[in-house]
Amino acid sequence: MGGNTFGTMFRVTTFGESHGPAVGVVVDGCPPRLPITIAEIQRELDRRRPGQSAITTQRRELDEVEILSGVHEGLTLGTPISMLVRNSDTRGGDYEEMRTKFRPSHADFTYKTKYGIRAWQGGGRASARETVGRVAAGVLARKALAAAGAIDIVAWVQRVQDLEVEIDAATVARDAVEANIVRCPDAATATRMIALIDEARKAGDSLGGVVEAVARGVPVGLGEPVFDKLEADLAKAMLSLPAAKGFEIGSGFAGTRLRGSEHNDPFYDGGGRVRTRGNRSGGVQGGISNGEDIVIRVAFKPTATILREQQTVDEDGHDTTLKARGRHDPCVLPRAVPIVEAMLALVLADHFLRQRGQCGS
Amino acid sequence: MGGNTFGTMFRVTTFGESHGPAVGVVVDGCPPRLPITIAEIQRELDRRRPGQSAITTQRRELDEVEILSGVHEGLTLGTPISMLVRNSDTRGGDYEEMRTKFRPSHADFTYKTKYGIRAWQGGGRASARETVGRVAAGVLARKALAAAGAIDIVAWVQRVQDLEVEIDAATVARDAVEANIVRCPDAATATRMIALIDEARKAGDSLGGVVEAVARGVPVGLGEPVFDKLEADLAKAMLSLPAAKGFEIGSGFAGTRLRGSEHNDPFYDGGGRVRTRGNRSGGVQGGISNGEDIVIRVAFKPTATILREQQTVDEDGHDTTLKARGRHDPCVLPRAVPIVEAMLALVLADHFLRQRGQCGS
Amino acid sequence: MGGNTFGTMFRVTTFGESHGPAVGVVVDGCPPRLPITIAEIQRELDRRRPGQSAITTQRRELDEVEILSGVHEGLTLGTPISMLVRNSDTRGGDYEEMRTKFRPSHADFTYKTKYGIRAWQGGGRASARETVGRVAAGVLARKALAAAGAIDIVAWVQRVQDLEVEIDAATVARDAVEANIVRCPDAATATRMIALIDEARKAGDSLGGVVEAVARGVPVGLGEPVFDKLEADLAKAMLSLPAAKGFEIGSGFAGTRLRGSEHNDPFYDGGGRVRTRGNRSGGVQGGISNGEDIVIRVAFKPTATILREQQTVDEDGHDTTLKARGRHDPCVLPRAVPIVEAMLALVLADHFLRQRGQCGS
Amino acid sequence: MGGNTFGTMFRVTTFGESHGPAVGVVVDGCPPRLPITIAEIQRELDRRRPGQSAITTQRRELDEVEILSGVHEGLTLGTPISMLVRNSDTRGGDYEEMRTKFRPSHADFTYKTKYGIRAWQGGGRASARETVGRVAAGVLARKALAAAGAIDIVAWVQRVQDLEVEIDAATVARDAVEANIVRCPDAATATRMIALIDEARKAGDSLGGVVEAVARGVPVGLGEPVFDKLEADLAKAMLSLPAAKGFEIGSGFAGTRLRGSEHNDPFYDGGGRVRTRGNRSGGVQGGISNGEDIVIRVAFKPTATILREQQTVDEDGHDTTLKARGRHDPCVLPRAVPIVEAMLALVLADHFLRQRGQCGS
Repeated sequence: MGGNTFGTMFRVTTFGESHGPAVGVVVDGCPPRLPITIAEIQRELDRRRPGQSAITTQRRELDEVEILSGVHEGLTLGTPISMLVRNSDTRGGDYEEMRTKFRPSHADFTYKTKYGIRAWQGGGRASARETVGRVAAGVLARKALAAAGAIDIVAWVQRVQDLEVEIDAATVARDAVEANIVRCPDAATATRMIALIDEARKAGDSLGGVVEAVARGVPVGLGEPVFDKLEADLAKAMLSLPAAKGFEIGSGFAGTRLRGSEHNDPFYDGGGRVRTRGNRSGGVQGGISNGEDIVIRVAFKPTATILREQQTVDEDGHDTTLKARGRHDPCVLPRAVPIVEAMLALVLADHFLRQRGQCGS
Repeated sequence: MGGNTFGTMFRVTTFGESHGPAVGVVVDGCPPRLPITIAEIQRELDRRRPGQSAITTQRRELDEVEILSGVHEGLTLGTPISMLVRNSDTRGGDYEEMRTKFRPSHADFTYKTKYGIRAWQGGGRASARETVGRVAAGVLARKALAAAGAIDIVAWVQRVQDLEVEIDAATVARDAVEANIVRCPDAATATRMIALIDEARKAGDSLGGVVEAVARGVPVGLGEPVFDKLEADLAKAMLSLPAAKGFEIGSGFAGTRLRGSEHNDPFYDGGGRVRTRGNRSGGVQGGISNGEDIVIRVAFKPTATILREQQTVDEDGHDTTLKARGRHDPCVLPRAVPIVEAMLALVLADHFLRQRGQCGS
Repeated sequence: MGGNTFGTMFRVTTFGESHGPAVGVVVDGCPPRLPITIAEIQRELDRRRPGQSAITTQRRELDEVEILSGVHEGLTLGTPISMLVRNSDTRGGDYEEMRTKFRPSHADFTYKTKYGIRAWQGGGRASARETVGRVAAGVLARKALAAAGAIDIVAWVQRVQDLEVEIDAATVARDAVEANIVRCPDAATATRMIALIDEARKAGDSLGGVVEAVARGVPVGLGEPVFDKLEADLAKAMLSLPAAKGFEIGSGFAGTRLRGSEHNDPFYDGGGRVRTRGNRSGGVQGGISNGEDIVIRVAFKPTATILREQQTVDEDGHDTTLKARGRHDPCVLPRAVPIVEAMLALVLADHFLRQRGQCGS
Repeated sequence: MGGNTFGTMFRVTTFGESHGPAVGVVVDGCPPRLPITIAEIQRELDRRRPGQSAITTQRRELDEVEILSGVHEGLTLGTPISMLVRNSDTRGGDYEEMRTKFRPSHADFTYKTKYGIRAWQGGGRASARETVGRVAAGVLARKALAAAGAIDIVAWVQRVQDLEVEIDAATVARDAVEANIVRCPDAATATRMIALIDEARKAGDSLGGVVEAVARGVPVGLGEPVFDKLEADLAKAMLSLPAAKGFEIGSGFAGTRLRGSEHNDPFYDGGGRVRTRGNRSGGVQGGISNGEDIVIRVAFKPTATILREQQTVDEDGHDTTLKARGRHDPCVLPRAVPIVEAMLALVLADHFLRQRGQCGS
């Protein structure tokens, strides 16, 4: 069984290799009669696309999306929505050396061993290029969520290496995030992050960090215990992203240092609706959204492909060295922001439809 | 769609409420002709069961398991294996106050709002009692994995609040873990952890911490990109556990502070098989196992149910206070160890069967 | 992947072998707050149970059902509902000869070859005894359907061998079906059918025939093209029943002899709702219910186990003969009636929840 | 949940509307390293395409397929294979009247009511044009089946209206089927069928009939009881086809007129492998293939769209009449032949991978 479908009610299937003809997605289960335009999808793809700034890969892809099915006169039909982006700037030649050598901490070795074959140019299926389809689908997910209320989803770069911004998830605005190329909502920190990434880029090295995300306005009741708890599906969604190594919700790892009496979020009468003081739960209790902000964090490792000589082996298993060429992100975090938002939207849309199906609202 | 099934090829469906007649599991897709005994399953359930030591809940459940189907003369049939544990020590009376009041940071409020009804005694479906079925299924998963090689799965308590053990995942032995009631493989640290938990228990409070786990001997090739990457399904498995708030694989959050040149795991010729120096990848690259140890960590928050008065609301949404009675774990970590092992086994077994199905080995 | 789960939103997983400890079912995704009693489930199981009349198997099973989870104070919780029936009258000895010999046209040979092992007593998992769980789940499915309107599901024996009743599906009443032991709503035909079956029983032989079923009051809109069309899932549901060899909806095979101009069902204004004249579509158009009666027919072959000597092979593949003992239905049709109804209810309930999830009503 | 994915291990997701930009398919779970060429896929699409002969619709579509992903240097990668066919000859104008009127026995009314919107040109998603993706996927399914042995799949037109060919499924050759435009392997009957269809076409009317299919060389063991029995998934596959109204396996409906002693297929020692005399089982026993030929039949109703005036209603529910224009098949059977073969291949491939996954061979 291939693992290229995500979701149960709102089902997203992506396809495509980095240097093949195209990447794309089929969304099945999207509610009908949602208004959707190419421009709305393109706007999100532009946030994800390579070459958008000095601190991302310089691969030049316009990532122009085409809708092949499922939309009629600007409205979704309730049938599968297929969207396609052609790969254009595919300099396979940059990868010639990787044809026979495995990049350390990349997917070359495992793909080759698992499948007995691999598309060696640019990472093939393991390339972050695959997330084009996720981002396109995420736009539809947000549309589907409109029926659940005014849900606001924002992600941002919370940390690059050791450079961290402490900011209140409750109030981060999309505009502040988009105001700079690193997508950190604090301008001063952003400037320092950009300098840090630029320095790593020049050194042929790479950096990791943390993306934080919030969903505000989520209704109570999303999440399907015991296995499809909301945080479980969020964790899966985020760990399915290239370079992701960790996931937290609410108080996360830090919260484990508190005592129960400190950690619990007391309920109170919020004037017609039950609220909590504090949000260490991160908006989810018992696997089900509780109406508070959903707050998550995702750890992204430093990009595996670096422009320095590294020890590795070739396809015959013999020791060798590799110095990658090609165009790579020195830090995936700025481009990961719209992708994390998309995955968050996909999980919420899927659980909203599930909840509506089983419980009727 | 209910969310009570985990896995695709090796499918586990659990059922049961804390104070209902029984908890149990159906395992569908288990390979045929595996030898299995009641004693093997009981041994694992005994590691999970309440009342096993002074630092766990004193609810007295023998958790005696019965196999209802799928096994014939000591061998699995290839048909669904259903296993049942009756609830016996169900003092619903301890929960009388919770009939109308929501415990802070517990699932009472969200279940009631989602379903419009809840089994208020002891957490109902949200109780950790549900994990009985997971542990029983985990025994079968380990059996199924035998065809993939000699895979060794061990988990342990790595941290309680701020009390941490630094230990090499590559060499932790099950015996050392089981040598004490807190399940920390370092005896000295274990003693201090036990004292810490006991102190919290006496104070009517609770503690959280981290469980670490390793799977040794996993073959290369398990994991189904792009959504069902091995780490994605592991993250989902772990975040589906009661009280889990975070997940890491390999270098995790700490690894994001390194540069790519420091973080990458160089490949080398390991004498007929490709190995890596270092294991920041945690045994998974590009979503697929690479043959190195799989190493993960799970954050568990302090138990929500504490024996102190807390601010909360009642079912009408009015402010009130609650002082829980009942028998609760002051720290879930010691009993979480066999559960984390079971989930790890379930994920590996599922991916082993998927790999064998698609790729033929 | 085991194949023991049916449905996507309303998911039914059955377990159990004919001569193992028990048979049962887990229903996941059942809407919450549905009133349900043991008596309601027992009533349907009694319609299915062996030994209910002179023309069914004489195995004496009371088939007393126990609810293990998912119901609280008479209402469904929205959590998995597990139901159990112990096997009591298990005379394994009757099957001693079948330990080493394969019954012709039964599942003995294929199970043994597929799994390398089989529960040889009474057919094991291939026994119709497995349908206990389906019938129990069907009661819940009917409850879940109540939110879709007053849907009336009735099945009956339409033909035994060549003895056929022509009756208007639109008006068949459950009472008329239950008025006789063969479950044919026409009393005169029923009497002749009973005599025919009794004659076959005395001859140690068996008979087949056709069960017809109708669902009245189904709303427009159930069915999920293109693969999960309503008739596709109905066909799968029915062909998953023991002894089923064919399925038709509406005009079925006979309708293929008409011209389009004769076959089409003209629409007309039915006074505020669109109706069709004629119902050759059988209540489904383009895979989606159209509001007319859903009418299907299922072909059941004559029972494979007969009490006559037959040519066969043993487990070593050598020619031999077998004369079955044991207690068997000379004709499965009377007991198939409640099972077909249950499967019809399961399909409709699943599609109702899917439609509500995706389209919001 | 949308219903546009078929299969569990070998998963096929189709997309596209009749008059939208394109139709296509994503195949996920296809084994790696299978050789595949555009020409092989095109050959099957040409068997399905419109305008191929005087007795099919005259819509002119070359149906040129493009592979977008999952294939590298002529071999499958183990990643999703996406294939696309652009719609070119889309004369939406022919359907202007259907913009507001529902064609009798077509999907116009149900789609509109279910989704609240419909792509009214040419049937939109309900058009048989959707099967392009199925046929393309079927080619890959046959490739995947090669690892299971030399499996030979052939379908043919067995009956048009009352004109029937009696032919031995064991020996029908693909060449004989392809020797004439109606795809009936008996030349004389074919000539009469062609005349019959041509006469109906001239009368603006349509005809139905039966397609029969055989799979030879299927190994023992495919099929996953109790719900995913081989015949159950075959029934679903076939009833998911446009215009399908019935399904039979082996003796089917006719077999219900026999007694068990006549109907059973005796086993015999076939020289190292167990065989049956007779094949009323149709190659499946207890839901699992038994090594004999799998033989099925599918009933297709006469095409709903006819060029005669019919009674119907408009979108406001008012009585009106409709006389369809456009280009339609007077009989779907000749073009259904490759589609039935594709679905048969898809079911077998899926079950082969499932069997290999669970049972290891």
